[in-house]
Amino acid sequence: MIDFSRVSDPTAGVVLCFSGGLDSTTLLYHLREQGREVLALSFDYGQRHRRELAVAARIASLAGVEHRVADLRSITSLLGGSSLTDPTVPLPHGHYTHESMKATVVPNRNMIMLAVAAGWAIARRAGFVAYAAHSGDHAIYPDCREEFARAMGEAISLADWHCVKLLRPFVGWDKARIVRRGMALAAPLHLTWSCYEGGEVHCGRCGTCVERREAFRLAGLPDPSE
Amino acid sequence: MIDFSRVSDPTAGVVLCFSGGLDSTTLLYHLREQGREVLALSFDYGQRHRRELAVAARIASLAGVEHRVADLRSITSLLGGSSLTDPTVPLPHGHYTHESMKATVVPNRNMIMLAVAAGWAIARRAGFVAYAAHSGDHAIYPDCREEFARAMGEAISLADWHCVKLLRPFVGWDKARIVRRGMALAAPLHLTWSCYEGGEVHCGRCGTCVERREAFRLAGLPDPSE
Repeated sequence: MIDFSRVSDPTAGVVLCFSGGLDSTTLLYHLREQGREVLALSFDYGQRHRRELAVAARIASLAGVEHRVADLRSITSLLGGSSLTDPTVPLPHGHYTHESMKATVVPNRNMIMLAVAAGWAIARRAGFVAYAAHSGDHAIYPDCREEFARAMGEAISLADWHCVKLLRPFVGWDKARIVRRGMALAAPLHLTWSCYEGGEVHCGRCGTCVERREAFRLAGLPDPSE
Repeated sequence: MIDFSRVSDPTAGVVLCFSGGLDSTTLLYHLREQGREVLALSFDYGQRHRRELAVAARIASLAGVEHRVADLRSITSLLGGSSLTDPTVPLPHGHYTHESMKATVVPNRNMIMLAVAAGWAIARRAGFVAYAAHSGDHAIYPDCREEFARAMGEAISLADWHCVKLLRPFVGWDKARIVRRGMALAAPLHLTWSCYEGGEVHCGRCGTCVERREAFRLAGLPDPSE
């Protein structure tokens, strides 16, 4: 019997699911402060807020970390539209409700993104995949549940002979705490992008804009972005 | 609290991971005999044996089931080449060995394919994802392990409020039994494609060709393909 635990030599590198938003930008700086090598991975799933991909590239470059974009557009089109990708589906405004949040779901998006991130971690012999799950993740998304994350962590750890671990360092944190942590780390929060609309400045009305504003208010800090 | 178990109404439809090979073709006919509606999903991961995609389409059309191809080529190129996709990496010949099989691995391919298949099942409100795992799946592939399949089944069942189940009806079957079952179901095994090389007929030398020949020999049946 081959001792597979000796086949590979995992490093401490982390593949970070990186949207260029508040949470994942803070997590990038958080992981780097811990001395980890970060590989930032963004996902092009045809989002109408294309700007977030450019923002992600800019922040990664500023932080000096490698950044790649996984193109999931052909998969998104197979799985059908949601308001995040299909301009004919209106975006919900204001606080999220059960119905308005369901409209923003791309079926199984989290599993697909984590599977690709884990693939990149295996290819690059990184020991970890990380994403910025936090306490504000909404129970309307089935794949934001603890049980889901645990099962995915288990599957990822078994997907290769060198065991890749799933990290969620902000689990239990609220967005205000993340904002304070990002500010303390001097993360470039003024560059981050949250808005689901495709405009040049934050619309201030969509669900993520409303949440972003509230996070800064609760943190007692001004939002440095426009 | 919303009773999410009542939000959706799953059907008995099955998304089948469908390569157009012996195993998944037999599974297609096996599931249809059980009265299930099959949605066949193939994966374009840039395989040099492009012919398998055309073969899959032809068999699905013959069987009268819906067939789609998920284009994973951009993800494959992100994850780096293997001998299955990169013509500069020589394909191993003859019986698989530890080293030659490692060369055919696309990192985390099974998780990525299952994640996309589960996404399509959620989008189409199918109750199941199926794939043709069998006893000949090799222990050299970490993501062919039972533990991996169990963890993925758990994650898939939690990825949506309507619980999608992962089916592996041929677990414990060897390839000879699959060949006999396919013949009994009058599945068009003469159309199926196994070879990893990109030729017009089976090369007879690569690992899957060798296994295919052996399966027919053990089943005591002639291989109806060229």
